Amino acid sequence: MTAPQNPLLNDRDVDFLLYEVLDAPRLCALPYFADHARETFDLYLQSSRRLAREVLFPTYRPVDASPPRFEGGAVAVHPALKQVFRPLVELGMLTATRPAAVGGQQLPLVVATLAGAYLMAANLSACGYLGLTTGAAHLIEAFGDDALKATFMTRMYAGEWTGTMALTEPQAGSSLADVQTRAAKTDAGHYLVRGSKIFISGGDHDLTENIVHLTLARIEGAPQGIKGVSLFAVPKRRIEAGQLVPNDVEVAGMIHKIGWRGLPSLAMSFGERGDCHGYLVGSPHQGIAYMFQMMNEARIMVGVNATATASAAYQEALGYALARPQGRRLGAKDPQAPQVPIIEHADVRRMLLRQKAIVEGSLALVATTAMYADLADHAADAEERARAQRLLDLLTPIAKTFPAEKGFESNALALQVHGGYGYSSEYLPEAWLRDQKLNAIHEGTTGIQGLDLLGRKAVAGGGAALVALGGEIQRAIGKAQRAGVEPAWGERLGAAMALVDEVTAHLAEAGMRGDVERMLRHSADYMELASTVVVAWQWLAMAAAAREGLAAGASPAGFYEGKLCAAQYWFSTELPRVEALAARCRSGEDSYARMQPAWF
Amino acid sequence: MTAPQNPLLNDRDVDFLLYEVLDAPRLCALPYFADHARETFDLYLQSSRRLAREVLFPTYRPVDASPPRFEGGAVAVHPALKQVFRPLVELGMLTATRPAAVGGQQLPLVVATLAGAYLMAANLSACGYLGLTTGAAHLIEAFGDDALKATFMTRMYAGEWTGTMALTEPQAGSSLADVQTRAAKTDAGHYLVRGSKIFISGGDHDLTENIVHLTLARIEGAPQGIKGVSLFAVPKRRIEAGQLVPNDVEVAGMIHKIGWRGLPSLAMSFGERGDCHGYLVGSPHQGIAYMFQMMNEARIMVGVNATATASAAYQEALGYALARPQGRRLGAKDPQAPQVPIIEHADVRRMLLRQKAIVEGSLALVATTAMYADLADHAADAEERARAQRLLDLLTPIAKTFPAEKGFESNALALQVHGGYGYSSEYLPEAWLRDQKLNAIHEGTTGIQGLDLLGRKAVAGGGAALVALGGEIQRAIGKAQRAGVEPAWGERLGAAMALVDEVTAHLAEAGMRGDVERMLRHSADYMELASTVVVAWQWLAMAAAAREGLAAGASPAGFYEGKLCAAQYWFSTELPRVEALAARCRSGEDSYARMQPAWF
Repeated sequence: MTAPQNPLLNDRDVDFLLYEVLDAPRLCALPYFADHARETFDLYLQSSRRLAREVLFPTYRPVDASPPRFEGGAVAVHPALKQVFRPLVELGMLTATRPAAVGGQQLPLVVATLAGAYLMAANLSACGYLGLTTGAAHLIEAFGDDALKATFMTRMYAGEWTGTMALTEPQAGSSLADVQTRAAKTDAGHYLVRGSKIFISGGDHDLTENIVHLTLARIEGAPQGIKGVSLFAVPKRRIEAGQLVPNDVEVAGMIHKIGWRGLPSLAMSFGERGDCHGYLVGSPHQGIAYMFQMMNEARIMVGVNATATASAAYQEALGYALARPQGRRLGAKDPQAPQVPIIEHADVRRMLLRQKAIVEGSLALVATTAMYADLADHAADAEERARAQRLLDLLTPIAKTFPAEKGFESNALALQVHGGYGYSSEYLPEAWLRDQKLNAIHEGTTGIQGLDLLGRKAVAGGGAALVALGGEIQRAIGKAQRAGVEPAWGERLGAAMALVDEVTAHLAEAGMRGDVERMLRHSADYMELASTVVVAWQWLAMAAAAREGLAAGASPAGFYEGKLCAAQYWFSTELPRVEALAARCRSGEDSYARMQPAWF
Repeated sequence: MTAPQNPLLNDRDVDFLLYEVLDAPRLCALPYFADHARETFDLYLQSSRRLAREVLFPTYRPVDASPPRFEGGAVAVHPALKQVFRPLVELGMLTATRPAAVGGQQLPLVVATLAGAYLMAANLSACGYLGLTTGAAHLIEAFGDDALKATFMTRMYAGEWTGTMALTEPQAGSSLADVQTRAAKTDAGHYLVRGSKIFISGGDHDLTENIVHLTLARIEGAPQGIKGVSLFAVPKRRIEAGQLVPNDVEVAGMIHKIGWRGLPSLAMSFGERGDCHGYLVGSPHQGIAYMFQMMNEARIMVGVNATATASAAYQEALGYALARPQGRRLGAKDPQAPQVPIIEHADVRRMLLRQKAIVEGSLALVATTAMYADLADHAADAEERARAQRLLDLLTPIAKTFPAEKGFESNALALQVHGGYGYSSEYLPEAWLRDQKLNAIHEGTTGIQGLDLLGRKAVAGGGAALVALGGEIQRAIGKAQRAGVEPAWGERLGAAMALVDEVTAHLAEAGMRGDVERMLRHSADYMELASTVVVAWQWLAMAAAAREGLAAGASPAGFYEGKLCAAQYWFSTELPRVEALAARCRSGEDSYARMQPAWF
């Protein structure tokens, strides 16, 4: 009963997405991607797959079993992380999508995203250091002056120093308006920073000699609330006379996380001795706006991570279900007959198909979102860029939330397929289940994503993003029809999207009347509604490509048949939920609005 | 930000169920319960609450942190378990419901169940030893001869020895037809047992001097399949010349469970040296039928445990949400205004109300099921006993599954309410989330419960149990109408129950045509459908009692208002799902039936 090596992601599915669904090579017609072609995409993917499977994945279990140690004021991480950090840098993970001018490869984000999914599925903590570093360096690239770029960005993109995002404070949590860390300008130009941060991922470690914290703080005299928050680069060690010297950044404590156990989450204090230098990034009081660049990138990466974490567990469950014999088919009467692999039991196949629908639906969603990011940055014409940006903005909270929430369910199913063995730490699914839970919390909880989606993204510009989404969906419906996909699916998707439009208009009206509470009361239901529709769109697009593949006689036919089964599952099992969700949003059902704290 | 002491369960809710919803004291009119009254119920409840909160709960975290050690062939459990084991025995947990003739208190199971919920919420592993012991002793009480009772049952009910259920084998898993453990009769009357078992909870420990394994094995020459399986009492140590001597029962290995970490799960080998004595319980080849008594009791206890585990986490989240300030109300513009407790945010209140609906709905369900068990055993007239037995049989798989599956979701929400803190082992919700996952696996997985519900219970006797359930539901609807509950709720519940009947008839017909695969394909959906309706029935009954309480001016009014909000939530958010579930069952949607293993 040994299952084969876990592939982490299905290569055929990744290729299908890139080349049959999204036609990513068309990006190479754009100047920014002109040096690329399918061949260079494949090369990067191939290197990533190999690194993921051969180097990273073998470190996953030992790293999970021995979390970082916090001793003598410093954090020591698992030695295996040191072995994988340089290969990840050398792969180009830090700069794959960045311009050649800063040392990058100008690869489309959609390619880097899918390649990154393998790496995250293999060892998410190891990837966390690089994701944070590239996000932080990109902030400096976008908003920092030349001195900051030379000092920080260059070393970060080179993997010499790592980066973090230092937003959250103990008394404020998700409420960034309540940031209290202070920054006082000195005559020398730098600021003196003082304050406490919490949940700083990668806030200390012994992988590199220095760490740069992209820190939200309030310049003395700044306005209250989010309009008075500025962004600073605050290094662990600063350069003085060509030497790195301590910068009064201390680890105050380590949180004992239940997953992502290779990446420490720390409470940090800045400037306890009054000697913490911070360097303003961009203009004063623009910190929240700047930070949203990193946060939006990070949110998509959370979605990729959630997808990868669900995929690894799904592949593990699939391998187990193919290999583990137990019981006989329904109605089989002969107790002497050999037992069958559990994948032959309908309910096990149900659990696997549900995982497939969630995992591959999520992967298509994050890849599509990444492709809009590519177009938003690099499309030839301004209108196309603006349109892609609207779609990117709309899809970001969904691409963050759907894989995290449904991925958690998918991870639980992977454990369930393993039965009693799944409930033990000898098997991997329980670890991925622990990992997955964080994705509904960090970079904005699911609740916050719902408020963002409905309160901002869906209604921004009079609902322009929903109009753009509706256009994309109509195009997909047309393509599916031409490809010979079951017509009812396209019809149902069209009707579901109409429902989203209608509900949004209804709720926006409440908002415009000033009843924001009423507008946003069911933002969680709205998120589910929109996610279910958006993923149905992805499944329709995949069904169309699968039909085309079958018609062209492409191989293997079974892969396409499986896609059509999973699409059928989504259209018959998930999409019908939209009616009830929309009805609830519209009705304003008020059970928890009326519920008083003392009544619980 | 210190939350108050976690009450584990809401006392007011427990009293409400017993005295306002179920009217449990009416049981005292039956001869078996004649020595009891509300006063004795309250006394037992009060002792259980105190023991749970003051003695058991303080041991939960240390026991979780230091799982049992398996060294030198024996298992050593956490010392704290030794401190709580005797108090639990002295409380009467082992014999509360058993007859006075065997040393019991003849307490209704419904009272013992609710009292037990506190104990399980406080430390489920500690309770596990007692639950297994009482279940195993009850098997001997029911089916063993006087010698077995004298040797084993008496000592087990006294808490001198503990018991286990030894069913599962490595090669067979859930497929009990494939049990291969052998038993050869000796001239001395006992059997020599030889075989391997796995996942034996409490299979070894150092709490008591002896352990009695109620073991499924095949007598030499027995028929193949489940018709050849017999039940044996196999002690760890047997009595010879008045002394306990080793009985060739060895621990082969310990599974590293992710929860329930005070209760070891072991691989055991019996008779490796050919010297393992087993004592036949009852008649040969009846083992599966006998074992189902213990399994059915255990399944209800799993439901209680799942409810308790969800309740403890819900109460923790509620305390946290009342105490933790963060952010401001929607539309509040003044950044200087103090932050509000997070329970003021709609989405947090949604998460709490959903937990309340699941937890209190589950508690009502398991209490109702336990009350049918009381009536099935002790009602005055044979017809009423038969009717209660049918309801008990029907509700058992639901009472096992709904609290486990929805409880897992509820536990995840409790973690989510805690935000980043919830993702750390410094806070308790993550531990209860780990604990909860087992409840969907042990004592028959959720998949197996679905097959049992649809394939056996719902269709047995031409659907007699559903007829009985329909009668109970109609009675509840009538009562709710008279109490002034929103009439639409009763109407919707009636329609939903009609849907269950219709779908069952439709699927039973497929079964009678011989298409068992078609009948059972959507047994998971059928379980969700039936669970949603059954829990709606519970919420309607609670709403009626709440309306009566309000009308009578009972106190506190807020408690009843909260009940009505939660009922509203269930009727507006969960009950509407039944349409889609029923449609799927009826249509026979075939995505995962068509899906081939090679297509994944």
